Amino acid sequence: MSLESYMNQIGQQARAASRLLAKASTEQKNMALFAMAEALEVARPKLIEENAKDMKSGEEKGLDSAMLDRLLLTDVRIDGMIEGLKQVASLSDPVGEISNMAYLPSGIQRGQMRVPLGVVGIIYESRPNVTIDAASLCLKSGNATILRGGSEAFYSNQMIATAISTGLEKVGLPATAVQVINTTDRAAVGKLITMPEFVDVIVPRGGKGLIERISADARVPVIKHLDGNCHVYVDDEADFDKAYKIVINAKTRRYGVCNAMESLLLHKNIAADFFPRILATFEEKGVELLGCSAMQALSDKVGVATEEDWYTEYTAPKLSIKVVEDMDEAIAHINKYGSHHTDAIVTQNYTKSRAFMTEVDSSSVMVNASTAFADGFEYGFGAEIGISTDKIHARGPVGLIGLTSQKYIVLGDGHTRDN
Amino acid sequence: MSLESYMNQIGQQARAASRLLAKASTEQKNMALFAMAEALEVARPKLIEENAKDMKSGEEKGLDSAMLDRLLLTDVRIDGMIEGLKQVASLSDPVGEISNMAYLPSGIQRGQMRVPLGVVGIIYESRPNVTIDAASLCLKSGNATILRGGSEAFYSNQMIATAISTGLEKVGLPATAVQVINTTDRAAVGKLITMPEFVDVIVPRGGKGLIERISADARVPVIKHLDGNCHVYVDDEADFDKAYKIVINAKTRRYGVCNAMESLLLHKNIAADFFPRILATFEEKGVELLGCSAMQALSDKVGVATEEDWYTEYTAPKLSIKVVEDMDEAIAHINKYGSHHTDAIVTQNYTKSRAFMTEVDSSSVMVNASTAFADGFEYGFGAEIGISTDKIHARGPVGLIGLTSQKYIVLGDGHTRDN
Repeated sequence: MSLESYMNQIGQQARAASRLLAKASTEQKNMALFAMAEALEVARPKLIEENAKDMKSGEEKGLDSAMLDRLLLTDVRIDGMIEGLKQVASLSDPVGEISNMAYLPSGIQRGQMRVPLGVVGIIYESRPNVTIDAASLCLKSGNATILRGGSEAFYSNQMIATAISTGLEKVGLPATAVQVINTTDRAAVGKLITMPEFVDVIVPRGGKGLIERISADARVPVIKHLDGNCHVYVDDEADFDKAYKIVINAKTRRYGVCNAMESLLLHKNIAADFFPRILATFEEKGVELLGCSAMQALSDKVGVATEEDWYTEYTAPKLSIKVVEDMDEAIAHINKYGSHHTDAIVTQNYTKSRAFMTEVDSSSVMVNASTAFADGFEYGFGAEIGISTDKIHARGPVGLIGLTSQKYIVLGDGHTRDN
Repeated sequence: MSLESYMNQIGQQARAASRLLAKASTEQKNMALFAMAEALEVARPKLIEENAKDMKSGEEKGLDSAMLDRLLLTDVRIDGMIEGLKQVASLSDPVGEISNMAYLPSGIQRGQMRVPLGVVGIIYESRPNVTIDAASLCLKSGNATILRGGSEAFYSNQMIATAISTGLEKVGLPATAVQVINTTDRAAVGKLITMPEFVDVIVPRGGKGLIERISADARVPVIKHLDGNCHVYVDDEADFDKAYKIVINAKTRRYGVCNAMESLLLHKNIAADFFPRILATFEEKGVELLGCSAMQALSDKVGVATEEDWYTEYTAPKLSIKVVEDMDEAIAHINKYGSHHTDAIVTQNYTKSRAFMTEVDSSSVMVNASTAFADGFEYGFGAEIGISTDKIHARGPVGLIGLTSQKYIVLGDGHTRDN
């Protein structure tokens, strides 16, 4: 079969399965998740074997150790995948919720019903556990899923796919509700993102390069974030103890995550007093500091930040620091150089906290809290499929709700429109 | 100035204005709407002169009478535009609404704040009153707007733009909050839909051809509907009096609107009894009927519907009719041939009404009500910028809410994340 025919078949099957999933009961979906967990447990030895094939070929291809680590499936990681399936089963089902139901002057009742998006395409790199995470969230939200993993995890993903199908069929749901593309041909991605008749939304998970390519070529809506260039602004009316804790946590909790602080803004009136507090800790932790000229004047431990630095997400023990005139300059800087992901102010001033929340144009805006909280679990969604910095549809951490849409429902009793 | 530089300047100005609009108070926005109404009143004689230029050049270019009618501005139509501005001022402001605020286990409070999208680009044809409608809805929802009207309404739109600017400046808002592109060069549209750095969303209003072209080329999200191929399904448990009223209203209230019924589905057990009731009225009103073979067997007044007819939005006194085995066939037909706009069932059966609402994958699904109700005014939004058949973001009639987004806000008191 040609790739074109293969992808069309995958698409048609997904669309057909999505009709059945949309009307599946919560109980049936939960049973499927438990059956998938069971099938994964049964497949465990075989999965470890298949994963070893991927690891071997990854080593032969010369993948770096970080990539090989992400690729590796251990017993602990498989336990985590099984646990994840059970956790998704325990989340409440958003599908079917009806809101804003009201009688209108014409006599009709109008409301909104929460419904699945339909078919969700997921494109991701290396980590095979994404196969389970994404499939389970899409299933619980009533969506059919087409998954395209990285070629380096091909054998692992195919094995996981088999376990998923087994689980689905056991409870009478179509095995095609979750399909893993069985070719590493790159053209499959090109086709997946350009068949709006079969795919309703694409969620890419991976590096910025991958996401940029997909966004540029897609003919289907994409839910994504590109950068996490997050800021903390320490105001002249900040409580220094809170500011210290937040700045250190936002930068050093983990360096490689999208909600880590990459740029620190200090009000000019407190920069000289506050900076020494954090300098010692950053030196101890080996965080490289780059700053504006005012920052360099304050300390010879601060290198030169270029214009490019203000735009940069380091995802590394590296931080840019700028001294600002006031909060307005901080907000303007964030809206210009930031990536609209997550930005925080530290201040005890009530009026400024309100203005910062209103004016900073980011998916999460925080007051006196670490940017590290920008996360679906921390926000109470139980799980997330990713974080969106898009402005339409889902913005911020995307959980089950972000995988649904709302349609209008109208109830009448023979009502017609006069004018 | 080159077109490229001109459009970049428009974009930069819109982005800058959007920052000010996002924090403008409801009162200031309402004052601006009233000032625009006043400025339009003052400009009335000049606007009628400028419109006459457009009409003259339209006649010379040989525009058809329907297009010329849409282009014409009369005193009554200008009254309508002025009234519309005042009505938008009376709508409640969605911006700043905070919902789902909750304390989470970590101690942070997390909620969602409703915020403007930022910059909205509107591309539309012929009717100059869209300039006012779109500008007022975008302004009220805190968005900056870039408007690109049809070349045939160039002089009218430029004059309306002047009145809008006058109103904005009078209340201290930037005149660049609403910008009307002052060139008829088609490349301006190509640029407008491909500058995501300045434009957050595009709303095209016009024929299907225009919207398809824009959707295909846009690098910015588009809120749109392409077709309104709406269905009414009359179930074997329908109340015939209600069914008659709904079928006639959905088809004959107006033929050219997107929420008109284009296809009628009749349960096989009632087709022979019910059809004669509607036939007389459709004949009287001159509605052409095309049907499946079963329909043709019922009546020699019914022509042959081809496969293509089931996909077609006639926007004309023409209707396709199909006899179906049962509700499941009706739902499958609607999901396959429909345009996911608005579809209705007529039935007295409770269980079927629930299943139809759940399973029909359309932006509006109705029970015992005419499809004609799919409309922002009828849904109680006070106004609409269009109807969306997209699944993400806004679905169905789009009012002020559809022109906003929600960002997460997090309040802490020095909170940091441990794990």
